Amino acid sequence: MAPSTVQHELMSIVGSGAATFAPNHNLDDLHDESLHHLTVQPLAVVRPKSTLQVAQIVALASRNGLAITPRGSGTGLSGAATPIPGGIVVNFELMNHIIRVDLIDHIAVVQPGVTLRELGETLKGTGLHYPVYPGELSGSIGGNVNTNAGGMRAVRHGVTRHHVLGLELVLADGSVVRTGGPVMKTSSGYDLTQLVLGSEGTLALVTEVTLKLSPRFERSATVLVPYESLTAISDVVPKVIASGLQPSMLEYLDRRTMTGLVAVTNLELGVEKSIVEQASAYLIVILETRTIEQLEADVADLAALLEASGALNIYVLADGAAARLIEARERMFWVAKEVGTHEIVDIVVPRSQVPIFLDEAMRIAQRYEAQITGCGHVGDGNVHLSVLLANTERRAKLMRDLFASGLQLGGAISGEHGIGIDKQAHYLALTDPTLLDLQRRIKLAFDPDRLLNPYRVFDDRPMPEDS
Amino acid sequence: MAPSTVQHELMSIVGSGAATFAPNHNLDDLHDESLHHLTVQPLAVVRPKSTLQVAQIVALASRNGLAITPRGSGTGLSGAATPIPGGIVVNFELMNHIIRVDLIDHIAVVQPGVTLRELGETLKGTGLHYPVYPGELSGSIGGNVNTNAGGMRAVRHGVTRHHVLGLELVLADGSVVRTGGPVMKTSSGYDLTQLVLGSEGTLALVTEVTLKLSPRFERSATVLVPYESLTAISDVVPKVIASGLQPSMLEYLDRRTMTGLVAVTNLELGVEKSIVEQASAYLIVILETRTIEQLEADVADLAALLEASGALNIYVLADGAAARLIEARERMFWVAKEVGTHEIVDIVVPRSQVPIFLDEAMRIAQRYEAQITGCGHVGDGNVHLSVLLANTERRAKLMRDLFASGLQLGGAISGEHGIGIDKQAHYLALTDPTLLDLQRRIKLAFDPDRLLNPYRVFDDRPMPEDS
Repeated sequence: MAPSTVQHELMSIVGSGAATFAPNHNLDDLHDESLHHLTVQPLAVVRPKSTLQVAQIVALASRNGLAITPRGSGTGLSGAATPIPGGIVVNFELMNHIIRVDLIDHIAVVQPGVTLRELGETLKGTGLHYPVYPGELSGSIGGNVNTNAGGMRAVRHGVTRHHVLGLELVLADGSVVRTGGPVMKTSSGYDLTQLVLGSEGTLALVTEVTLKLSPRFERSATVLVPYESLTAISDVVPKVIASGLQPSMLEYLDRRTMTGLVAVTNLELGVEKSIVEQASAYLIVILETRTIEQLEADVADLAALLEASGALNIYVLADGAAARLIEARERMFWVAKEVGTHEIVDIVVPRSQVPIFLDEAMRIAQRYEAQITGCGHVGDGNVHLSVLLANTERRAKLMRDLFASGLQLGGAISGEHGIGIDKQAHYLALTDPTLLDLQRRIKLAFDPDRLLNPYRVFDDRPMPEDS
Repeated sequence: MAPSTVQHELMSIVGSGAATFAPNHNLDDLHDESLHHLTVQPLAVVRPKSTLQVAQIVALASRNGLAITPRGSGTGLSGAATPIPGGIVVNFELMNHIIRVDLIDHIAVVQPGVTLRELGETLKGTGLHYPVYPGELSGSIGGNVNTNAGGMRAVRHGVTRHHVLGLELVLADGSVVRTGGPVMKTSSGYDLTQLVLGSEGTLALVTEVTLKLSPRFERSATVLVPYESLTAISDVVPKVIASGLQPSMLEYLDRRTMTGLVAVTNLELGVEKSIVEQASAYLIVILETRTIEQLEADVADLAALLEASGALNIYVLADGAAARLIEARERMFWVAKEVGTHEIVDIVVPRSQVPIFLDEAMRIAQRYEAQITGCGHVGDGNVHLSVLLANTERRAKLMRDLFASGLQLGGAISGEHGIGIDKQAHYLALTDPTLLDLQRRIKLAFDPDRLLNPYRVFDDRPMPEDS
C-alpha cells in the first residue's frame, strides 16, 4: 500500500483531526524526556479514541509492515517512545477516561492516557488512592505500566506492577484480549499482565488498565536527618524498615544535591549552619499513619532509632516545608536537565551496597574527570545520578563502568526508568545472552513481525535511517 | 537411547541412592494432594542435589525427548505434579538448603526444596519473616513459586509473586540462567521472574529463589465476629480495609463449616448458644501491630466499625483460642478430605461479589442435589468450597457451572491452587482461545519440544497412556 493510501486509511479510522503526517508533526509527539533526543519523522502520529480504533490501526500497520510506537504523556526518560522512521506513533492522550472507580472493591479501571494527576484528583475524598508516585504527575497510567514506574513511595507500596490487576491489550495482529481482572490474585495460567508490565511497548498496546486502590493514611510526618556520611544512612535504613514503622519514603540526597536544591528553591529547612557544614548526606523519612496518636508514637520511636545511629540532628518538618522539600526533590531531574547534565542514571543495587556503589561511582568520576552527583530511593537501593561529562566517547565508557559496577554488586541497569534506546547498548553488552535470546523468543511469540516498538531493549537490529 | 541407558545415565548424575525406576517407585512421589489421584508410573524419579545435576538431568531428557515433571513437597491441590508416563519426576527435596539470609538487605536465598516451616524456623528471632501463609507449612518454596501460592495473609501481604525477587532457572535445553536478583525493583527487560511465577513447572525448573523478607509485627489480636448473613460480612470488609487498619487476615466461615470445625477440634470460642443459633456466617479478623498501645487503639476502632455493621457480638480471642482457631481453619482441607469431599474449589471473584457468587453456588448445589460448604479469604474474594456429589458426570457439569458463574462476576478459576490437571478441562472451555494460544506460543519460546510438565493448563494434547 502506498504511504498516501495508509494515510487515507488512518484518517478514516481516527478522523482527520486526530492524525498528523510527516513532515507536519507536532514536535512534542516525537520525543520523550530522555536527554538524548533523536529527531525522527514517523510516517504518522495518530490519536485514537477507543480500543476499536487502536485495533484497526494495529491491523493496518500489520498488513503494511509498519512499525508502531505507543506513546503516553512522553514523560519517559529512556527514549522508549522515540518514533521509528516510516512508522506510526499511537498517542494515547485522547484515551483519557476513568471508566470506573469502585469504592467497594477498591479498583479503578482507566484508559491508558489518564494521568496520575487526573486519577489522584478523582480519588480525592474517597479515602483511597493509587499509591505509586514516580514524581511526574503528568505521566500517564499507560506509560507507567509500560515502564513499570516506581518512585519515592516504592519502599512501602511497591512499584506499578504491584498495583495493576488486569489489562486490555491490542495484540500485534489487531486482536483484543483481556488479562487478569478486578480480582486481587489469580493462579490461572501465565500472568500475562505481569509480563506486559515493564515491556516498554514491545509486546502489545495497552488500551485499558485495572488498578488496585489502597487506603490513604490521613496523618503524615516528614523527618529530615543530616549525617556525616552516607554509610551511616545506609546503616540505619534497614533498621528503620525492620522496625515495622512502614516508612512511605526513605530518600537520600548528597550534599551537593541538597545545596543545589536549597539554592534553586529558596527552601528554608531550619538546618543550622554548623550542621550544614558537617553534613555530607541527608536522609528524608516520611511516616504515614491512621491516627495522630499513632503518628506521634511512631515519630518518637523513629527519632530514638535515628539518634542512636549518628544523626547530626533530627528535623520534623512543618507541613509546608515538608511539601516543598518533596516537591523540590521531584524537580531534581528538571534542575539537572537545566544545568546541562549529560546522563541520568537510575541503577538499582541491594540496599546495603549503596555506599559501596557510590564510592565506586566517585572513583569512576575521578578516572574520567567527570562530575557525578545524586540522590535516590535509599530504602530500595535505587540510586539516581547525574553525570556531567561533555565528551561523548569517554562518557559512554564511564556509563559502561557505572553499569558494570552496579551489576557486579547484584544490581540492575534500571530500577524504574527502563532500557529504551538510551541504555540499550549497555544492556546488550552486560546482559546474559541466554536471557536476551529468551526475551527475543517471547517477543516473537507476541509479535512475529517485530512491529511493536522495535529496535530497543533486546532488539539489537540497527534502527532504519530516517528518510 | 534405550530406557536402561537413560536409567544408567540418571544414576550417574544423581547417584544410585537418589533415583528410583518404574515400577519400584515410592508411591508418595507419584501424586500431590489433589483429590483425584492419577496413578501414573514415570520412567524415573530423581532427587538432584545441585543446580548442575538438574541441568544435566534436563539436558539428558531433552536429548531423549522425555517429559519432566518438577515436584516440591507434593502439597499441591491441582495435580500439577502428576507424573507423565515414561517421563522423569525431578523431586527437589534434597535441594533444601537456605543459602543465605541477609538481615541488612532483608533477603533470603533458598533452594526450592526448603519448606515454609524450615524458612520460618530459620527466621525466628530476627524480627523478619516471609509473610506468605498458604496454610500448609510443609509446602516447599519451589512449589509455592510454581503455583504462586496465596493464603490467609494475602489480604495484607499479597501472594508469593509479591515476595520473589529473583530466580535461578534451568531451561529446557539444560542451560542455567538467573532472572531478577537481590534488588527490590527493576525495569530492565521483561520480568521473567514474574512470568515463571505461577507457571506450574511448564517454563523452566526453578533451582534457586531469592525472597524478600518483611518486618514481623510483634503484637496481634484475633477477633471473631458472628453475623446473621454473609452479605453483612461482605459489606463490612471493604470498610475494614479502607480504614487503614491493615488486617493481616479477613476470613469467613459459613455456619456449617464453623460447626464442623468446632466439632472436629473441640474448640471453645466462647460464643453464646443464642448467637450460634442466629449466626449464619463468621468473620475472623487478625490485626498485627508494632506496639501494644497501637494494638489496643486499633482493636477498639475495629470493634466500633464492626458494631456499626450488624455484628451479633464481637469476641477478641485469647492467644490460645486464636491460635487453635487459625490452625483449625488451616486444617479444613484435611477435614473436607476426610469426610469424602469430591471437589475443592478456590474460585476468586471481586470482593463485593462473594455473597452473589455464594448465592449462585447454593442454587447450583440445589439444581444438582449436591452439598456445597465453604470458607474463604473474604478480604480478597478467594472462596474455598467443598463439593459433595458422587456422580462424576453431574459433578463435572456442576463444576463447569460454578466456574462459569465466577468468571461471569469478573473472577478467575483459581485464586491460588493453580489449574494443573484437575481444572484443565474447565479452564480450556472457559478461557479466551486467543489467551490460550498466546500461552502456547510463550511455552514454545521456552520449551520448543514441550517436555517441561506437559499436558496441563493450556496444553490440551491428550496425556499418553500409561504403559
